[in-house]
Amino acid sequence: MGKAAMTILVCAMAGLIFASAVSSRSTESSYGEDRALIEDLQARYMFALDFKDADTYASTFTQDGVLDYGPAVRGREAIRKLIADMGKRDQDRAAQDGSGRRPAVGRHNISNIVIKIDGNKAVGRAYWFHYGNNNPTRTATLDSFGHYEDEMVKVDGKWFFSKRKIYNEQVADWAFRGGNPAW
Amino acid sequence: MGKAAMTILVCAMAGLIFASAVSSRSTESSYGEDRALIEDLQARYMFALDFKDADTYASTFTQDGVLDYGPAVRGREAIRKLIADMGKRDQDRAAQDGSGRRPAVGRHNISNIVIKIDGNKAVGRAYWFHYGNNNPTRTATLDSFGHYEDEMVKVDGKWFFSKRKIYNEQVADWAFRGGNPAW
Amino acid sequence: MGKAAMTILVCAMAGLIFASAVSSRSTESSYGEDRALIEDLQARYMFALDFKDADTYASTFTQDGVLDYGPAVRGREAIRKLIADMGKRDQDRAAQDGSGRRPAVGRHNISNIVIKIDGNKAVGRAYWFHYGNNNPTRTATLDSFGHYEDEMVKVDGKWFFSKRKIYNEQVADWAFRGGNPAW
Repeated sequence: MGKAAMTILVCAMAGLIFASAVSSRSTESSYGEDRALIEDLQARYMFALDFKDADTYASTFTQDGVLDYGPAVRGREAIRKLIADMGKRDQDRAAQDGSGRRPAVGRHNISNIVIKIDGNKAVGRAYWFHYGNNNPTRTATLDSFGHYEDEMVKVDGKWFFSKRKIYNEQVADWAFRGGNPAW
Repeated sequence: MGKAAMTILVCAMAGLIFASAVSSRSTESSYGEDRALIEDLQARYMFALDFKDADTYASTFTQDGVLDYGPAVRGREAIRKLIADMGKRDQDRAAQDGSGRRPAVGRHNISNIVIKIDGNKAVGRAYWFHYGNNNPTRTATLDSFGHYEDEMVKVDGKWFFSKRKIYNEQVADWAFRGGNPAW
Repeated sequence: MGKAAMTILVCAMAGLIFASAVSSRSTESSYGEDRALIEDLQARYMFALDFKDADTYASTFTQDGVLDYGPAVRGREAIRKLIADMGKRDQDRAAQDGSGRRPAVGRHNISNIVIKIDGNKAVGRAYWFHYGNNNPTRTATLDSFGHYEDEMVKVDGKWFFSKRKIYNEQVADWAFRGGNPAW
Protein backbone atom coordinates (compact mmCIF):
# COMPACT_ATOMS: atom_id res chain seq x y z
CA MET A 1 0.00 0.00 0.00
CA GLY A 2 1.45 3.40 -1.00
CA LYS A 3 1.81 6.26 1.41
CA ALA A 4 -0.98 8.28 -0.24
CA ALA A 5 -3.47 5.37 -0.03
CA MET A 6 -2.49 4.83 3.59
CA THR A 7 -3.11 8.47 4.39
CA ILE A 8 -6.51 8.38 2.72
CA LEU A 9 -7.48 5.25 4.63
CA VAL A 10 -6.45 6.71 7.96
CA CYS A 11 -8.28 9.93 7.21
CA ALA A 12 -11.40 8.10 6.13
CA MET A 13 -11.40 6.09 9.35
CA ALA A 14 -10.92 9.22 11.41
CA GLY A 15 -13.75 10.82 9.46
CA LEU A 16 -15.89 7.77 10.05
CA ILE A 17 -15.37 7.89 13.80
CA PHE A 18 -16.22 11.58 13.96
CA ALA A 19 -19.13 11.18 11.56
CA SER A 20 -20.52 8.37 13.63
CA ALA A 21 -20.40 10.49 16.77
CA VAL A 22 -21.97 13.46 15.03
CA SER A 23 -24.63 11.39 13.35
CA SER A 24 -25.90 9.63 16.42
CA ARG A 25 -25.78 12.74 18.55
CA SER A 26 -27.68 14.71 15.97
CA THR A 27 -30.28 11.97 15.59
CA GLU A 28 -30.78 11.61 19.33
CA SER A 29 -31.43 15.27 19.83
CA SER A 30 -33.56 15.88 16.76
CA TYR A 31 -37.16 17.03 17.02
CA GLY A 32 -38.42 13.80 15.47
CA GLU A 33 -36.53 11.55 17.85
CA ASP A 34 -37.52 13.46 20.95
CA ARG A 35 -41.12 13.80 19.86
CA ALA A 36 -41.32 10.06 19.23
CA LEU A 37 -40.06 9.35 22.75
CA ILE A 38 -42.46 11.88 24.25
CA GLU A 39 -45.44 10.43 22.37
CA ASP A 40 -44.54 7.03 23.77
CA LEU A 41 -44.34 8.49 27.27
CA GLN A 42 -47.75 10.12 26.81
CA ALA A 43 -49.29 6.84 25.68
CA ARG A 44 -47.68 4.74 28.42
CA TYR A 45 -49.07 7.22 30.95
CA MET A 46 -52.58 6.48 29.68
CA PHE A 47 -52.28 2.70 29.88
CA ALA A 48 -50.87 2.99 33.39
CA LEU A 49 -53.71 5.29 34.44
CA ASP A 50 -56.57 3.22 33.06
CA PHE A 51 -55.21 -0.12 34.19
CA LYS A 52 -54.34 1.33 37.60
CA ASP A 53 -50.67 0.49 37.31
CA ALA A 54 -49.61 2.99 39.95
CA ASP A 55 -45.88 2.19 39.75
CA THR A 56 -45.65 2.71 36.00
CA TYR A 57 -47.84 5.80 36.22
CA ALA A 58 -45.56 7.34 38.86
CA SER A 59 -42.48 6.41 36.83
CA THR A 60 -43.57 8.75 34.04
CA PHE A 61 -42.86 11.68 36.38
CA THR A 62 -39.52 12.98 37.64
CA GLN A 63 -38.73 12.29 41.31
CA ASP A 64 -40.14 15.67 42.29
CA GLY A 65 -42.67 15.86 39.45
CA VAL A 66 -45.99 17.63 39.94
CA LEU A 67 -49.40 16.29 38.94
CA ASP A 68 -51.98 19.06 39.08
CA TYR A 69 -55.53 17.88 38.27
CA GLY A 70 -57.22 20.61 40.30
CA PRO A 71 -55.51 19.75 43.55
CA ALA A 72 -51.77 19.37 43.01
CA VAL A 73 -49.65 16.43 44.14
CA ARG A 74 -45.84 16.56 44.23
CA GLY A 75 -43.33 13.74 44.01
CA ARG A 76 -43.40 10.20 42.68
CA GLU A 77 -44.46 8.57 45.91
CA ALA A 78 -47.45 10.89 46.44
CA ILE A 79 -48.45 10.42 42.81
CA ARG A 80 -48.11 6.65 43.08
CA LYS A 81 -50.32 6.60 46.15
CA LEU A 82 -52.99 8.73 44.43
CA ILE A 83 -53.33 6.23 41.59
CA ALA A 84 -53.07 3.19 43.86
CA ASP A 85 -55.91 4.57 46.02
CA MET A 86 -57.99 5.25 42.93
CA GLY A 87 -57.45 1.65 41.84
CA LYS A 88 -58.41 0.40 45.29
CA ARG A 89 -61.70 2.36 45.22
CA ASP A 90 -62.48 0.91 41.78
CA GLN A 91 -61.89 -2.61 43.06
CA ASP A 92 -64.06 -2.03 46.12
CA ARG A 93 -66.85 -0.68 43.96
CA ALA A 94 -66.63 -3.65 41.60
CA ALA A 95 -66.64 -6.07 44.54
CA GLN A 96 -69.82 -4.48 45.93
CA ASP A 97 -71.57 -4.62 42.56
CA GLY A 98 -74.10 -7.42 42.90
CA SER A 99 -75.43 -7.11 39.35
CA GLY A 100 -73.45 -9.99 37.87
CA ARG A 101 -72.31 -7.73 35.07
CA ARG A 102 -68.68 -7.71 34.05
CA PRO A 103 -66.70 -4.83 35.60
CA ALA A 104 -67.17 -1.49 33.93
CA VAL A 105 -64.05 -0.12 32.27
CA GLY A 106 -62.99 3.34 31.12
CA ARG A 107 -60.25 4.71 28.93
CA HIS A 108 -58.44 8.03 28.70
CA ASN A 109 -57.15 9.08 25.29
CA ILE A 110 -54.69 11.75 24.22
CA SER A 111 -54.83 13.63 20.91
CA ASN A 112 -53.64 16.80 19.18
CA ILE A 113 -50.20 16.66 20.75
CA VAL A 114 -48.31 19.94 20.35
CA ILE A 115 -44.69 19.85 21.54
CA LYS A 116 -41.96 22.47 21.65
CA ILE A 117 -38.50 21.09 22.47
CA ASP A 118 -35.44 22.99 23.63
CA GLY A 119 -32.53 20.68 24.40
CA ASN A 120 -33.46 18.53 27.37
CA LYS A 121 -36.63 20.45 28.14
CA ALA A 122 -39.98 20.38 26.42
CA VAL A 123 -43.40 21.92 26.84
CA GLY A 124 -46.51 20.22 25.56
CA ARG A 125 -50.17 20.84 25.01
CA ALA A 126 -52.66 18.10 24.15
CA TYR A 127 -56.33 17.20 24.38
CA TRP A 128 -57.64 14.33 26.45
CA PHE A 129 -61.02 12.63 26.40
CA HIS A 130 -62.49 9.69 28.22
CA TYR A 131 -65.08 7.08 27.35
CA GLY A 132 -66.27 4.06 29.25
CA ASN A 133 -69.12 1.67 29.82
CA ASN A 134 -70.07 2.37 33.43
CA ASN A 135 -73.81 1.87 32.87
CA PRO A 136 -76.22 -1.06 33.17
CA THR A 137 -75.93 -2.06 29.50
CA ARG A 138 -72.16 -1.65 29.34
CA THR A 139 -72.70 0.72 26.43
CA ALA A 140 -69.70 2.71 25.21
CA THR A 141 -70.16 6.37 26.09
CA LEU A 142 -67.97 9.43 25.78
CA ASP A 143 -68.17 11.17 29.13
CA SER A 144 -65.45 13.76 29.69
CA PHE A 145 -62.70 15.83 28.11
CA GLY A 146 -60.17 18.56 28.74
CA HIS A 147 -56.56 19.31 27.95
CA TYR A 148 -53.06 18.96 29.31
CA GLU A 149 -50.35 21.54 29.80
CA ASP A 150 -47.10 19.67 30.28
CA GLU A 151 -43.50 20.37 31.17
CA MET A 152 -41.07 17.57 30.43
CA VAL A 153 -37.39 16.92 30.95
CA LYS A 154 -34.95 14.44 29.43
CA VAL A 155 -32.70 12.65 31.88
CA ASP A 156 -30.13 10.14 30.57
CA GLY A 157 -32.00 9.90 27.27
CA LYS A 158 -35.45 9.31 28.81
CA TRP A 159 -38.27 11.84 28.97
CA PHE A 160 -40.36 12.43 32.10
CA PHE A 161 -43.12 14.77 33.13
CA SER A 162 -41.78 17.40 35.52
CA LYS A 163 -45.26 18.92 35.61
CA ARG A 164 -48.63 17.92 34.18
CA LYS A 165 -51.48 20.37 34.61
CA ILE A 166 -54.88 18.85 33.76
CA TYR A 167 -57.86 20.95 32.74
CA ASN A 168 -61.20 19.19 33.02
CA GLU A 169 -64.28 20.64 31.33
CA GLN A 170 -66.69 18.56 33.42
CA VAL A 171 -65.90 20.44 36.62
CA ALA A 172 -66.56 24.19 36.56
CA ASP A 173 -63.60 24.92 38.85
CA TRP A 174 -61.23 22.82 36.78
CA ALA A 175 -62.35 24.07 33.37
CA PHE A 176 -60.02 26.21 31.29
CA ARG A 177 -60.66 29.92 30.79
CA GLY A 178 -58.64 31.93 28.35
CA GLY A 179 -57.19 32.00 24.90
CA ASN A 180 -55.31 29.41 22.89
CA PRO A 181 -53.07 27.55 25.38
CA ALA A 182 -50.87 26.37 22.48
CA TRP A 183 -49.02 28.45 19.89
CA MET B 1 3.21 17.19 16.40
CA GLY B 2 4.56 15.20 13.38
CA LYS B 3 3.43 15.88 9.83
CA ALA B 4 1.41 12.64 9.65
CA ALA B 5 -0.48 13.42 12.85
CA MET B 6 -1.14 16.93 11.58
CA THR B 7 -2.51 15.55 8.31
CA ILE B 8 -4.80 13.15 10.15
CA LEU B 9 -6.06 15.92 12.39
CA VAL B 10 -6.81 18.21 9.47
CA CYS B 11 -8.52 15.40 7.59
CA ALA B 12 -10.58 14.45 10.60
CA MET B 13 -11.72 18.02 11.04
CA ALA B 14 -12.62 18.29 7.38
CA GLY B 15 -14.50 15.01 7.68
CA LEU B 16 -16.28 16.30 10.75
CA ILE B 17 -17.42 19.43 8.97
CA PHE B 18 -18.74 17.47 6.00
CA ALA B 19 -20.25 14.80 8.21
CA SER B 20 -22.03 17.41 10.24
CA ALA B 21 -23.52 18.96 7.12
CA VAL B 22 -24.57 15.58 5.74
CA SER B 23 -25.97 14.40 9.04
CA SER B 24 -28.19 17.37 9.70
CA ARG B 25 -29.40 17.56 6.12
CA SER B 26 -30.25 13.88 6.13
CA THR B 27 -32.00 14.14 9.48
CA GLU B 28 -34.03 17.16 8.44
CA SER B 29 -35.36 15.51 5.33
CA SER B 30 -36.09 12.09 6.80
CA TYR B 31 -39.63 10.72 6.97
CA GLY B 32 -39.58 10.70 10.75
CA GLU B 33 -38.45 14.31 11.07
CA ASP B 34 -40.93 15.63 8.53
CA ARG B 35 -43.78 13.57 9.92
CA ALA B 36 -43.04 14.87 13.42
CA LEU B 37 -43.21 18.45 12.18
CA ILE B 38 -46.42 17.78 10.26
CA GLU B 39 -48.08 16.14 13.27
CA ASP B 40 -47.24 19.22 15.29
CA LEU B 41 -48.74 21.43 12.57
CA GLN B 42 -51.89 19.31 12.55
CA ALA B 43 -52.24 19.59 16.32
CA ARG B 44 -51.54 23.34 16.46
CA TYR B 45 -54.25 23.81 13.81
CA MET B 46 -56.77 22.17 16.17
CA PHE B 47 -55.90 24.29 19.19
CA ALA B 48 -56.11 27.43 17.06
CA LEU B 49 -59.48 26.37 15.66
CA ASP B 50 -61.13 25.48 18.96
CA PHE B 51 -59.78 28.46 20.88
CA LYS B 52 -60.63 30.78 17.97
CA ASP B 53 -57.06 31.95 17.54
CA ALA B 54 -57.61 33.19 13.99
CA ASP B 55 -54.05 34.41 13.45
CA THR B 56 -52.42 31.14 14.44
CA TYR B 57 -55.02 29.19 12.49
CA ALA B 58 -54.31 31.21 9.33
CA SER B 59 -50.56 30.84 9.87
CA THR B 60 -50.82 27.09 9.37
CA PHE B 61 -51.63 27.75 5.70
CA THR B 62 -49.38 29.05 2.94
CA GLN B 63 -50.04 32.62 1.80
CA ASP B 64 -52.30 31.36 -0.99
CA GLY B 65 -53.45 28.24 0.86
CA VAL B 66 -56.93 26.85 0.31
CA LEU B 67 -59.36 25.76 3.02
CA ASP B 68 -62.21 23.80 1.51
CA TYR B 69 -64.87 22.75 4.06
CA GLY B 70 -67.69 22.59 1.52
CA PRO B 71 -67.31 26.16 0.34
CA ALA B 72 -63.66 26.93 -0.41
CA VAL B 73 -61.71 29.91 0.91
CA ARG B 74 -58.35 30.96 -0.56
CA GLY B 75 -55.50 32.88 1.05
CA ARG B 76 -54.42 33.51 4.61
CA GLU B 77 -56.38 36.71 5.08
CA ALA B 78 -59.68 35.18 3.93
CA ILE B 79 -59.03 32.14 6.13
CA ARG B 80 -58.18 34.33 9.11
CA LYS B 81 -61.41 36.28 8.68
CA LEU B 82 -63.48 33.08 8.49
CA ILE B 83 -62.20 31.90 11.87
CA ALA B 84 -62.34 35.36 13.44
CA ASP B 85 -66.01 35.68 12.37
CA MET B 86 -66.73 32.22 13.76
CA GLY B 87 -65.18 33.28 17.07
CA LYS B 88 -67.24 36.49 17.07
CA ARG B 89 -70.48 34.53 16.56
CA ASP B 90 -69.56 32.23 19.45
CA GLN B 91 -68.93 35.20 21.72
CA ASP B 92 -72.21 36.84 20.75
CA ARG B 93 -74.09 33.63 21.42
CA ALA B 94 -72.42 33.22 24.82
CA ALA B 95 -73.19 36.86 25.69
CA GLN B 96 -76.88 36.34 24.90
CA ASP B 97 -77.07 33.15 26.96
CA GLY B 98 -78.95 34.14 30.09
CA SER B 99 -78.78 30.71 31.69
CA GLY B 100 -75.91 31.48 34.04
CA ARG B 101 -74.17 28.34 32.87
CA ARG B 102 -70.48 28.47 32.03
CA PRO B 103 -69.84 28.84 28.28
CA ALA B 104 -70.17 25.66 26.25
CA VAL B 105 -66.94 24.47 24.67
CA GLY B 106 -66.13 22.09 21.84
CA ARG B 107 -63.02 20.33 20.62
CA HIS B 108 -61.89 18.98 17.26
CA ASN B 109 -59.53 16.02 17.30
CA ILE B 110 -57.36 14.47 14.61
CA SER B 111 -56.49 10.77 14.39
CA ASN B 112 -55.27 8.10 11.98
CA ILE B 113 -52.79 10.39 10.28
CA VAL B 114 -51.50 8.94 6.99
CA ILE B 115 -48.72 10.96 5.35
CA LYS B 116 -46.77 10.51 2.13
CA ILE B 117 -43.75 12.80 1.79
CA ASP B 118 -41.82 13.65 -1.36
CA GLY B 119 -39.10 16.22 -0.71
CA ASN B 120 -40.77 19.48 0.26
CA LYS B 121 -44.25 18.28 -0.58
CA ALA B 122 -46.56 15.99 1.32
CA VAL B 123 -50.07 14.64 1.02
CA GLY B 124 -52.05 13.59 4.05
CA ARG B 125 -55.20 11.82 5.03
CA ALA B 126 -56.62 11.80 8.53
CA TYR B 127 -59.85 11.44 10.48
CA TRP B 128 -61.36 14.21 12.56
CA PHE B 129 -64.09 14.10 15.16
CA HIS B 130 -65.63 16.65 17.45
CA TYR B 131 -67.14 16.54 20.91
CA GLY B 132 -68.44 19.29 23.11
CA ASN B 133 -70.82 20.19 25.89
CA ASN B 134 -73.24 22.55 24.17
CA ASN B 135 -76.29 21.32 26.11
CA PRO B 136 -78.08 22.37 29.32
CA THR B 137 -76.15 19.94 31.53
CA ARG B 138 -72.76 20.60 29.94
CA THR B 139 -72.51 16.89 29.30
CA ALA B 140 -69.67 15.70 27.05
CA THR B 141 -71.08 14.49 23.75
CA LEU B 142 -69.52 13.30 20.52
CA ASP B 143 -71.34 15.13 17.78
CA SER B 144 -69.58 15.03 14.42
CA PHE B 145 -66.85 13.45 12.36
CA GLY B 146 -65.30 13.28 8.92
CA HIS B 147 -61.89 13.25 7.33
CA TYR B 148 -59.21 15.51 5.89
CA GLU B 149 -57.43 15.36 2.55
CA ASP B 150 -54.38 17.57 2.83
CA GLU B 151 -51.63 18.95 0.63
CA MET B 152 -48.66 20.39 2.48
CA VAL B 153 -45.45 22.16 1.53
CA LYS B 154 -42.22 22.81 3.42
CA VAL B 155 -40.87 26.34 3.17
CA ASP B 156 -37.61 27.22 4.94
CA GLY B 157 -37.90 24.13 7.12
CA LYS B 158 -41.51 24.73 8.19
CA TRP B 159 -44.56 22.83 6.97
CA PHE B 160 -47.79 24.53 5.91
CA PHE B 161 -51.11 23.46 4.47
CA SER B 162 -51.33 24.48 0.83
CA LYS B 163 -54.76 22.85 0.71
CA ARG B 164 -57.02 21.26 3.28
CA LYS B 165 -60.19 19.60 2.03
CA ILE B 166 -62.63 18.72 4.83
CA TYR B 167 -65.26 16.03 4.47
CA ASN B 168 -68.06 16.22 7.01
CA GLU B 169 -70.40 13.28 7.52
CA GLN B 170 -73.06 15.36 9.29
CA VAL B 171 -73.97 17.28 6.12
CA ALA B 172 -75.20 15.18 3.19
CA ASP B 173 -73.59 17.50 0.64
CA TRP B 174 -70.25 17.52 2.41
CA ALA B 175 -70.10 13.77 3.11
CA PHE B 176 -67.54 11.63 1.33
CA ARG B 177 -68.55 9.19 -1.37
CA GLY B 178 -66.11 6.73 -2.82
CA GLY B 179 -63.43 4.23 -1.99
CA ASN B 180 -60.46 4.41 0.36
CA PRO B 181 -59.14 7.99 0.17
CA ALA B 182 -55.78 6.79 1.55
CA TRP B 183 -53.43 4.13 0.22
CA MET C 1 -3.41 22.98 -6.00
CA GLY C 2 -0.67 22.00 -3.51
CA LYS C 3 -0.18 18.46 -2.28
CA ALA C 4 -1.46 19.26 1.20
CA ALA C 5 -4.67 20.80 -0.13
CA MET C 6 -5.13 17.81 -2.41
CA THR C 7 -4.73 15.42 0.53
CA ILE C 8 -7.28 17.34 2.58
CA LEU C 9 -9.74 17.34 -0.30
CA VAL C 10 -9.39 13.61 -0.88
CA CYS C 11 -9.75 12.90 2.82
CA ALA C 12 -12.77 15.12 3.13
CA MET C 13 -14.45 13.33 0.24
CA ALA C 14 -13.68 9.95 1.76
CA GLY C 15 -15.06 11.21 5.05
CA LEU C 16 -18.13 12.48 3.26
CA ILE C 17 -18.81 9.11 1.68
CA PHE C 18 -18.46 7.28 4.96
CA ALA C 19 -20.42 9.91 6.84
CA SER C 20 -23.23 9.68 4.34
CA ALA C 21 -23.43 5.93 4.77
CA VAL C 22 -23.36 6.17 8.53
CA SER C 23 -25.85 8.99 8.67
CA SER C 24 -28.54 7.38 6.57
CA ARG C 25 -28.15 3.99 8.21
CA SER C 26 -28.40 5.52 11.64
CA THR C 27 -31.46 7.56 10.67
CA GLU C 28 -33.27 4.60 9.17
CA SER C 29 -32.95 2.46 12.25
CA SER C 30 -33.68 5.08 14.86
CA TYR C 31 -36.68 4.91 17.19
CA GLY C 32 -38.17 8.04 15.66
CA GLU C 33 -37.91 6.82 12.09
CA ASP C 34 -39.34 3.39 12.83
CA ARG C 35 -42.09 4.78 15.01
CA ALA C 36 -43.08 7.22 12.26
CA LEU C 37 -43.36 4.35 9.77
CA ILE C 38 -45.35 2.24 12.21
CA GLU C 39 -47.76 5.07 12.97
CA ASP C 40 -48.37 5.44 9.26
CA LEU C 41 -49.00 1.69 8.99
CA GLN C 42 -51.45 1.87 11.88
CA ALA C 43 -53.35 4.74 10.26
CA ARG C 44 -53.43 3.17 6.77
CA TYR C 45 -54.88 0.03 8.37
CA MET C 46 -57.79 2.08 9.70
CA PHE C 47 -58.61 3.74 6.39
CA ALA C 48 -58.48 0.37 4.64
CA LEU C 49 -60.76 -1.17 7.27
CA ASP C 50 -63.43 1.53 7.27
CA PHE C 51 -63.51 2.00 3.50
CA LYS C 52 -63.50 -1.78 3.00
CA ASP C 53 -60.32 -1.75 0.95
CA ALA C 54 -59.60 -5.44 1.51
CA ASP C 55 -56.40 -5.51 -0.56
CA THR C 56 -54.76 -2.62 1.26
CA TYR C 57 -55.97 -3.97 4.60
CA ALA C 58 -54.42 -7.38 3.90
CA SER C 59 -51.19 -5.73 2.70
CA THR C 60 -50.57 -4.32 6.18
CA PHE C 61 -49.93 -7.91 7.37
CA THR C 62 -47.02 -10.20 6.60
CA GLN C 63 -47.77 -13.10 4.24
CA ASP C 64 -48.46 -15.39 7.20
CA GLY C 65 -49.69 -12.63 9.50
CA VAL C 66 -52.36 -13.34 12.12
CA LEU C 67 -55.44 -11.23 12.78
CA ASP C 68 -57.05 -12.28 16.04
CA TYR C 69 -60.28 -10.38 16.83
CA GLY C 70 -61.76 -13.16 18.95
CA PRO C 71 -61.57 -15.80 16.27
CA ALA C 72 -58.12 -15.80 14.65
CA VAL C 73 -57.41 -15.68 10.93
CA ARG C 74 -54.00 -16.50 9.46
CA GLY C 75 -52.42 -15.35 6.20
CA ARG C 76 -53.01 -12.43 3.87
CA GLU C 77 -55.52 -14.18 1.65
CA ALA C 78 -57.75 -15.24 4.54
CA ILE C 79 -57.52 -11.76 6.02
CA ARG C 80 -58.34 -10.17 2.67
CA LYS C 81 -61.41 -12.39 2.31
CA LEU C 82 -62.63 -11.51 5.81
CA ILE C 83 -62.63 -7.79 5.03
CA ALA C 84 -64.02 -8.26 1.52
CA ASP C 85 -66.93 -10.28 2.93
CA MET C 86 -67.53 -7.61 5.57
CA GLY C 87 -67.67 -5.01 2.81
CA LYS C 88 -70.08 -7.16 0.81
CA ARG C 89 -72.45 -7.48 3.78
CA ASP C 90 -72.37 -3.72 4.26
CA GLN C 91 -73.24 -3.14 0.63
CA ASP C 92 -76.09 -5.66 0.75
CA ARG C 93 -77.49 -4.01 3.86
CA ALA C 94 -77.29 -0.56 2.25
CA ALA C 95 -78.98 -1.86 -0.91
CA GLN C 96 -81.88 -3.26 1.14
CA ASP C 97 -82.31 -0.04 3.08
CA GLY C 98 -85.46 1.52 1.63
CA SER C 99 -85.35 4.60 3.83
CA GLY C 100 -83.86 6.95 1.26
CA ARG C 101 -81.25 7.99 3.79
CA ARG C 102 -77.61 8.25 2.74
CA PRO C 103 -75.59 5.16 3.70
CA ALA C 104 -74.51 4.99 7.33
CA VAL C 105 -70.77 5.16 7.85
CA GLY C 106 -68.48 4.24 10.73
CA ARG C 107 -64.91 4.94 11.63
CA HIS C 108 -62.28 3.17 13.72
CA ASN C 109 -59.66 5.32 15.43
CA ILE C 110 -56.36 4.47 17.05
CA SER C 111 -54.83 6.37 19.97
CA ASN C 112 -52.30 6.06 22.81
CA ILE C 113 -49.79 4.18 20.68
CA VAL C 114 -47.05 2.56 22.77
CA ILE C 115 -44.24 0.97 20.76
CA LYS C 116 -41.10 -0.92 21.76
CA ILE C 117 -38.66 -1.51 18.90
CA ASP C 118 -35.80 -3.99 18.78
CA GLY C 119 -34.06 -3.98 15.40
CA ASN C 120 -36.52 -5.28 12.82
CA LYS C 121 -39.12 -6.34 15.38
CA ALA C 122 -41.55 -4.27 17.35
CA VAL C 123 -44.34 -4.80 19.84
CA GLY C 124 -47.15 -2.33 20.19
CA ARG C 125 -50.09 -1.51 22.40
CA ALA C 126 -52.77 1.01 21.49
CA TYR C 127 -56.40 1.91 22.15
CA TRP C 128 -59.07 1.81 19.49
CA PHE C 129 -62.55 3.28 19.47
CA HIS C 130 -65.30 3.46 16.91
CA TYR C 131 -68.04 5.96 16.15
CA GLY C 132 -70.58 6.04 13.38
CA ASN C 133 -73.99 7.24 12.34
CA ASN C 134 -75.89 3.98 11.86
CA ASN C 135 -79.19 5.35 13.18
CA PRO C 136 -82.28 6.98 11.61
CA THR C 137 -81.03 10.53 12.12
CA ARG C 138 -77.46 9.83 11.03
CA THR C 139 -76.31 11.22 14.36
CA ALA C 140 -72.65 10.75 15.27
CA THR C 141 -72.36 8.25 18.12
CA LEU C 142 -69.45 6.61 19.88
CA ASP C 143 -70.30 2.93 20.05
CA SER C 144 -67.35 0.71 20.87
CA PHE C 145 -63.78 0.53 22.09
CA GLY C 146 -60.99 -1.79 23.07
CA HIS C 147 -57.27 -2.15 22.56
CA TYR C 148 -54.68 -3.73 20.30
CA GLU C 149 -51.71 -5.91 21.14
CA ASP C 150 -49.45 -5.95 18.10
CA GLU C 151 -46.34 -7.69 16.87
CA MET C 152 -44.67 -6.08 13.88
CA VAL C 153 -41.71 -6.84 11.65
CA LYS C 154 -39.69 -4.75 9.23
CA VAL C 155 -38.99 -6.34 5.87
CA ASP C 156 -36.93 -4.42 3.29
CA GLY C 157 -37.53 -1.17 5.14
CA LYS C 158 -41.31 -1.59 5.45
CA TRP C 159 -43.21 -2.47 8.60
CA PHE C 160 -46.01 -5.08 8.69
CA PHE C 161 -48.21 -6.65 11.33
CA SER C 162 -47.12 -10.21 11.99
CA LYS C 163 -49.87 -10.43 14.61
CA ARG C 164 -52.64 -8.14 15.72
CA LYS C 165 -54.70 -9.21 18.72
CA ILE C 166 -57.88 -7.14 19.18
CA TYR C 167 -59.62 -6.81 22.51
CA ASN C 168 -63.20 -5.57 22.29
CA GLU C 169 -65.00 -4.33 25.39
CA GLN C 170 -68.44 -4.64 23.82
CA VAL C 171 -68.33 -8.43 23.78
CA ALA C 172 -67.88 -10.14 27.15
CA ASP C 173 -65.82 -12.97 25.65
CA TRP C 174 -63.54 -10.57 23.79
CA ALA C 175 -63.03 -8.11 26.63
CA PHE C 176 -59.65 -7.81 28.29
CA ARG C 177 -59.02 -9.11 31.79
CA GLY C 178 -55.82 -8.41 33.60
CA GLY C 179 -53.31 -5.75 34.47
CA ASN C 180 -51.63 -3.09 32.36
CA PRO C 181 -50.98 -4.67 28.94
CA ALA C 182 -48.32 -2.02 28.24
CA TRP C 183 -45.21 -1.15 30.21
